[in-house]
Amino acid sequence: MANMVTVDNGRALRGLRSGAMEEMLDRSAHELYRLVHRTGPGAEFTGWLDLPDRIGPALLRRIDETAASLRNRADVVVLCGIGGSYLGARAGLDFLETGDDRATSSRPAILYAGNNLSPRSLRKTLEQVNDREFSVIVVSKSGTTLETMVTFHMLWTELVHRFGEPAARSRVIAITDPAHGVLRTMAIDKGFVSFDLPQDVSGRYSVLTPTGLLPFAVRGFDVQAILQGAAQQRAAAMETQSQDNDTLVYASTRRLLGRSGKAVELFAAFEPSVHYLAEWWKQLFGESEGKAGKGIFPATADYTTDLHALGQFVQQGSPCLFETVLRLRAAGADMTFTSTPDLHDDLDYLNGALLSSMNQAAEESTVQAHGEGEIPVIQISAVDTSERSFGAIVFFFQLSCAIGGYLLGVDPFDQPGVEMYKRALHALLSTPACQRSTDLP
Amino acid sequence: MANMVTVDNGRALRGLRSGAMEEMLDRSAHELYRLVHRTGPGAEFTGWLDLPDRIGPALLRRIDETAASLRNRADVVVLCGIGGSYLGARAGLDFLETGDDRATSSRPAILYAGNNLSPRSLRKTLEQVNDREFSVIVVSKSGTTLETMVTFHMLWTELVHRFGEPAARSRVIAITDPAHGVLRTMAIDKGFVSFDLPQDVSGRYSVLTPTGLLPFAVRGFDVQAILQGAAQQRAAAMETQSQDNDTLVYASTRRLLGRSGKAVELFAAFEPSVHYLAEWWKQLFGESEGKAGKGIFPATADYTTDLHALGQFVQQGSPCLFETVLRLRAAGADMTFTSTPDLHDDLDYLNGALLSSMNQAAEESTVQAHGEGEIPVIQISAVDTSERSFGAIVFFFQLSCAIGGYLLGVDPFDQPGVEMYKRALHALLSTPACQRSTDLP
Repeated sequence: MANMVTVDNGRALRGLRSGAMEEMLDRSAHELYRLVHRTGPGAEFTGWLDLPDRIGPALLRRIDETAASLRNRADVVVLCGIGGSYLGARAGLDFLETGDDRATSSRPAILYAGNNLSPRSLRKTLEQVNDREFSVIVVSKSGTTLETMVTFHMLWTELVHRFGEPAARSRVIAITDPAHGVLRTMAIDKGFVSFDLPQDVSGRYSVLTPTGLLPFAVRGFDVQAILQGAAQQRAAAMETQSQDNDTLVYASTRRLLGRSGKAVELFAAFEPSVHYLAEWWKQLFGESEGKAGKGIFPATADYTTDLHALGQFVQQGSPCLFETVLRLRAAGADMTFTSTPDLHDDLDYLNGALLSSMNQAAEESTVQAHGEGEIPVIQISAVDTSERSFGAIVFFFQLSCAIGGYLLGVDPFDQPGVEMYKRALHALLSTPACQRSTDLP
Repeated sequence: MANMVTVDNGRALRGLRSGAMEEMLDRSAHELYRLVHRTGPGAEFTGWLDLPDRIGPALLRRIDETAASLRNRADVVVLCGIGGSYLGARAGLDFLETGDDRATSSRPAILYAGNNLSPRSLRKTLEQVNDREFSVIVVSKSGTTLETMVTFHMLWTELVHRFGEPAARSRVIAITDPAHGVLRTMAIDKGFVSFDLPQDVSGRYSVLTPTGLLPFAVRGFDVQAILQGAAQQRAAAMETQSQDNDTLVYASTRRLLGRSGKAVELFAAFEPSVHYLAEWWKQLFGESEGKAGKGIFPATADYTTDLHALGQFVQQGSPCLFETVLRLRAAGADMTFTSTPDLHDDLDYLNGALLSSMNQAAEESTVQAHGEGEIPVIQISAVDTSERSFGAIVFFFQLSCAIGGYLLGVDPFDQPGVEMYKRALHALLSTPACQRSTDLP
């Protein structure tokens, strides 16, 4: 199967001992074997490996029908979730938008909520749904995540107030654990349409479950093509010898760079619509690797914007980082630059140039300049911003990340540290000061 | 003068040799002296120190008049700039919005452009001004920054097309070098209203010049209060003994943490409207420190959102980082949580709680949990999100950053590395492939 995501590490390996890459590729191939045969840590959370096949026709039909019903009755769909119950959907929705309004203007707008505790933010969400036909997709495995559930509670109150309880019930879709938890119980009790978050898939690996697929379908994107892209990328990763296996090459290269002392991986792309894919990448790698005092710190940049903010540091600052550049051609109409000689802005030499060509030139220049600055650069190329490409990219990073976790000697599927914050928060909220409307100091 | 920004480093100093802080504070006080007396590196770019006074009544009146004229004739003002010609304005505009639409609904909306080369992004901007009364503020010291000038060129073409050239001329405000460069020449030639970017202030220190002040005035914010806040913070920094001097405490603490091996400073706040202040902070510190192989890598997080993405890494990942949390109370109306017993979401214990109290509890819990995870945490507290507070915060960070650069032994006011990218880009764009509308591979 043709590889939809390719990796060029030619600018990343300078100074590494010869043979080191081959050894690491062998180890990566071994870790891939352990992963696929479910013999590594966290094997009970590797269900995402099978998702491209497991989403059968019956589930796809339910997703399509639910999406169609949302399109028919809602001008706005509020996506209420945080972390893995939010970032994958937003990553895909931004990535897939072509910027061509005609294609999607009849689709409901998507609002994101339930991902913070800012009154200003929640107030704005409520203002935006005010007087508009809205529905809510609420996503939480347990139904106890504070940000999401407090926000959902307020959205529910608004739905009941606006439409009455019976109609409000038909305006909520819950995506949650198949059997347990507060949200599952509520969905049964209220009769919400609901979808399962598979028990063997943790949040940051859940893009290809209804968490991502339902919002993608609501906006009219081709969910099957996304799954096909993921399946194609999986096949490429499983069937290719290690030295030509881009998934293993990425996992191995970043492991070697981490071992050589690089503390930070800076993930960058030259298209603003990739911003939330980068945020998703940040959670995926940060939460999977960052434990037991290990992991490469995941940072992101939107180029060219951030070349004028972080570029100086990347070029000449502390050599604590390496850069991973995702290269792709964004879909949507291009623009041609036409010079206006009387403006005297010295841009006549660009007359007739496509804006995308300038952006591409900026990409080349950056890789070249940062390479000259002796910054290791990993280049990852994807085909375009189609559905198929998105599925492939998601699977590529999930698989690289899981292998990377095994190479590092950690369980890439748990997140024990998040529990400390949740416990501390719950303890504090249960004290009398927060149970009343008192101002904290 | 009362300090409007205070620093608590009690959770940041664990494991440091006793006496180290006192020594570093002494050095910081010395560097402050060198800075103020213009005897350190880059002294010719320290004009920002005087900005709170230097913006006299005549300039303030011109800013007010120009802002009033923009409010009268424009529904949309496009702010065309990148890096320091963009981030400070956006930081302030987001920070100062109260979320109360009544106060600002009669003000023109602000659109940001000229900060990337994405055709999709530029197309969207042109669609958003289509059929609306719009004006353009273009900001560039030299007038040669590609992203900004290409975008301005296209906006200018649109203005001429829509309104005819004479009217178009009156719809552009240029902020640029007082005497030199392409944009200054153009402003003179076309008769644009223009403001000076002082020659002794580099981009990332220019918030308190017309670059920031004009957009703030357009949205109806109190520019004088911003300058007063900056002046008050400056007075506090100049007049306070070093051990109680919060500016020196911040500069010294982060220098000690950097010296102890921390590669990353993670700047976080619990209010989404602080997002672009964090982006501005990132440029300020990254570009000022990141040279000669030195500097702490500046990263940012939006909490609580990113607690569910980066929280795991911060808590238990590689101990390569420390955290700087900006604490403040956002202006704008609060919200009270009212439980609905029939929903069975186990949130009854929060009945009557303010959302801001929950957010505050999340802040406390985070500082506590990350502290228990042995992550050094610097807490910076500002009063609120008023204009005065914004001015104080800006000056606090600029001054800490300049002192930090001196402590590190670099010139905090230059950015030689950005030139490498600009040269490489210009060379590539001047090749024939980019001069025609050919698709690059």
